[in-house]
Formats: sequence, C-alpha cells, structure tokens
Amino acid sequence: MAIKPKVLIIGLGLIGASFGKALRGAGAAHIIGFDREEGVAEQAIELGVIDEARFSLKVLSDIDVVVMAVPVLAISSIVRQIDYLIPSLKVLTDVGSVKGEVVKSVNKVLGSLPECFVPGHPIAGAEKSGVTAAQEDLFQNHLHILTPLEHSQPEAVELLSTLWTQCGAQVVKMSVQRHDEVLAATSHLPHLLAFSLVDTLARESENREIFKYAAGGFRDFSRIAASDPTMWHDIFLTNKDATLTILRRFQTDLSMLERAIEEENGEALHSVFSRAKSARDHFAEILAEREKS
Amino acid sequence: MAIKPKVLIIGLGLIGASFGKALRGAGAAHIIGFDREEGVAEQAIELGVIDEARFSLKVLSDIDVVVMAVPVLAISSIVRQIDYLIPSLKVLTDVGSVKGEVVKSVNKVLGSLPECFVPGHPIAGAEKSGVTAAQEDLFQNHLHILTPLEHSQPEAVELLSTLWTQCGAQVVKMSVQRHDEVLAATSHLPHLLAFSLVDTLARESENREIFKYAAGGFRDFSRIAASDPTMWHDIFLTNKDATLTILRRFQTDLSMLERAIEEENGEALHSVFSRAKSARDHFAEILAEREKS
Repeated sequence: MAIKPKVLIIGLGLIGASFGKALRGAGAAHIIGFDREEGVAEQAIELGVIDEARFSLKVLSDIDVVVMAVPVLAISSIVRQIDYLIPSLKVLTDVGSVKGEVVKSVNKVLGSLPECFVPGHPIAGAEKSGVTAAQEDLFQNHLHILTPLEHSQPEAVELLSTLWTQCGAQVVKMSVQRHDEVLAATSHLPHLLAFSLVDTLARESENREIFKYAAGGFRDFSRIAASDPTMWHDIFLTNKDATLTILRRFQTDLSMLERAIEEENGEALHSVFSRAKSARDHFAEILAEREKS
Repeated sequence: MAIKPKVLIIGLGLIGASFGKALRGAGAAHIIGFDREEGVAEQAIELGVIDEARFSLKVLSDIDVVVMAVPVLAISSIVRQIDYLIPSLKVLTDVGSVKGEVVKSVNKVLGSLPECFVPGHPIAGAEKSGVTAAQEDLFQNHLHILTPLEHSQPEAVELLSTLWTQCGAQVVKMSVQRHDEVLAATSHLPHLLAFSLVDTLARESENREIFKYAAGGFRDFSRIAASDPTMWHDIFLTNKDATLTILRRFQTDLSMLERAIEEENGEALHSVFSRAKSARDHFAEILAEREKS
C-alpha cells in the first residue's frame, strides 16, 4: 500500500474542514490541521476532520501538501509564515475564489512562483460556515478548478488532482485569467446583483414590510445575499477587472430591456425571455447529468 | 349545513386547477370548470380538479362565483363572453399578477366596475404549468392578496376571503396601486434581472460552455429565468410604470456599487453587503414564521 501523503490544512472553515473530512473519509491522506482561532483545531479533531492539530505554523516538518484554506487577502501573511517549508513540499495550493490575486500575492512574498504551487478553487459551498459546518460530501459531483502555472511541476498537478478526485470532485483545468473571467460571470456578478437588489428593496420600504409579499422566486434569488459580506468584499476588490467587464455588459443589456418596456416593445422582451429560458433549460440539463454521473 | 357556492373557474392552468382542487378538497364549493383548450376540462374531471365541465361560456346560469384564471391580456375577451352572467354573480374575481390592468380591462368592456368584482392575486406558483401540475396544497401558508375596489360589496369581499382561506391561504388586502408596486419590486424586477443575466451569459460564451462552471448560487438565481416567456412579456407590458420605477432605482444603486469596485472602496461594498445580508436574514425569519403558522 502506498504511504499516505501528509496534508496540512491551514484554515479550518467550511472548505478546509470539509476537505479534511472528505480525504480522511476516503482514507487518502494523513491530515494535520491549523486554525488561527483558538479551540477550532481541537473541535476539528473531535469532529473527525483532522488527525492531528498544530497550534503554530513554526517548526513544522515532514509535510507533503499544504492547503491554504483562508480568504484571498490572507494568503500573503500565510505564505510569509510558511516560506521555510515550501522548498520541501510536493504541493502548495489554495481554495480561493479569485486566482489572479493569489498568484500575485505568492509571487510578491517569495519573489518567484515555486514549482510545487498549483492554485485551485472548489466550486462548492453552503450557507453555513465554520468547522462545525464541515461536510464529507461537500465536493461530491462538484467541479474543482485547477489553474496550473507555467512552472507548476506535472507531478504536483497530478498529486493534487488525485486528492480532489478522492474527495468526489470532478477536476478541470484552465488558465488563471479564464478562471477569473468565468467566475466573475457565473458567481461574482450574480452575488453582486442579489446583494444590490435586496439592499434596494430593503431601503425602499419602511420596516422592510415589502419582504412579506415576496414569493419563492425572490427567495431563490435572494438566498445568495445571505453570504458573508467580508468574503465578498475581498472578492470584488481582488477580481476587479473581470467583474467590471461583465457587470458593464450586463448593465448595457439591462438598459436595452428597460427601453423595450418603456417603448412597449413586446417582441424584444419575448425574444430575450425565450433565449434566457432556453439557456436556463440547457443549464438544468448539465446539472442533471452531473448529478447522475 | 350551508349550501355550497357554485364556483366557475375559467382557465384550468396551474392556478385555476389548483384552486379547484383545493376548494373541492376542503368540501367548500361545487366546482364547474371551463378551458378553451380541447380535452383539458375532461382531464380536470379525471384529476379531481372540478365537479362538472362546461365546453362553452354561453348559456351558463346558476353560478355564484366566477374566477378568471387566465393571463392578464386575456381578461377583456373573457369579460366580453360572460357579461350576461355578471348581474347575477355574488363574486367576480381573477388571479392575475398585475391588478391595475385587470381593473382597466373590466371597466373598459363593461363601462363600469360591477359591485361583485374583487380582483385577487395568489402569491404562489410552481415551475410546472397546466392542469396536470395542479396541487391541492399550492396555496397552503401562502399569501393571497385581495385588492377590493371602491364599489366592491363587503359581502363579495367576505365570501372571496372565505374561499381562499379554505384553500389554506392567508388573505391580505391592499390597494390596486400598492399591489402593483409591491409585486414590481418583489417579483417582476427579480424575474427581469434573472432573464437578463442568463441571456447576457448565454451570449457571452460559445456553446454556453460557461454554465458548466456555475455553482448553486447561480442555480438559485437562474431558476426563475425558466418561467414562461409569454406570461412575463404580458406582465412587463401591463405593469410598465411600477416596473420602470423600481428598475431605475435598482440601476442607480448598482451603478454606485460599480463605482465602489472601480475605486476599490471596500468600505462602501462592505456596508451594502452587510445591510443586504441583514435584510435577507430578516426575510428568512418571516418565511420561517409563516411556515410554522
């Protein structure tokens, strides 16, 4: 039997803790956990998320893989603390929602990009957060995007792919830039619209009385506005260009619909709604297929 | 025991058929059904939605309540066909998503607003449509908005309230104008944004490949873009003013967020996201309470 890799997870929030639980569940790795908040690593042991806890990032040794499961804007500080470990690692990775900024941070701290560094981003999440929200099957049938860099070692990419596959994820690869554009469109913009809409409506009415009359469609739409404000604030500051590009395209299209309503142009409205319905039905098929596989 | 009212439902789609099924389930009315599409009324009998079928709107008699469960733009034509019945009715109502337009249509056809006329709108729906999608519990714990008019008879309002309450709905009353403003904000604008976003993204990428990378948040958001394009086209044409007002307010607020991203104004972003999260959490509480009651 192959020796299990030793995986250090830094940050035992929803994603870090679920990754640990899933890898342990698959018997695929020996998991060492660190969290800067007191008591979290102990909880993680009790919850079966990690095998061992560390209470400092100093004097670590004998680690194969480091997963930085922290917000994008905390990456620099983590890399500074574990720089001594990096030369002996097989894989250094992260789970951030914006990849360009993570690469920039690592490069800035280290002066170059290590060959073991392979950025990654699991397309999964849940409304709850923290170590107690850890789910062994969080990544099951979800995509995990890897964005290998020019100098990433093929062995590092392969080992990381294997680990995420063992968690049940479907691994896909794309460039850092493409990742940030795709996520700006499919995740960052929808969140911005949901936050913005809920805020517009809340300010609209005294005592938020208007929400009483909202139906299921609004519930679905507004659910994502319940996400963590700090995490999203980081995302928009670090994926500025891609977000602004798709946001402006959306604003132009929305203004066209505004004009169509104003001019009572039923044909224009019907044609946009029909195209959207057909695209949405196509998306529903993709989801159904992924769930079957 | 009181004599059951005779209720004629015109239009046996999801809403009309579910209302029939719910009233029959409650033993609260004798249901007569009409649908202009051949075979639908027969199906409705088989499915337990109605007691009797009618295949024409001519020579009807002995009806207490007429429910026009047809699209808003079809109301005029229905009223023209049943005008001879109206003087003997206890209640004339509808279930349309826009109330101003329905009132205007009835007034235009009849030259005045009959005292039995009480417009209504159930805040309920489902992704499926048609008589086969009928659900006895569709209105359970959902709001039903009545918009009584100046000349609506109190007895008509009371009888109609009783019928919807017997279907499990919570009846609330407001003015026609308030209804159209509230729905523009909580339903019509969110649908417009979902249609618009899905269309922007679909045109963005060859083969709609981008949807592969979308996660749960986007699924929730885009679900409402799967709604019937014709029905929504009617809604935006008939609730033009209220929709444009709230749409423009939203566009102004979104442009402010755009500027905050552009200027990397983290404080502005965080403050909007936090306000939105707090409003959304408040909305989630309202929903939870309603489901308990």
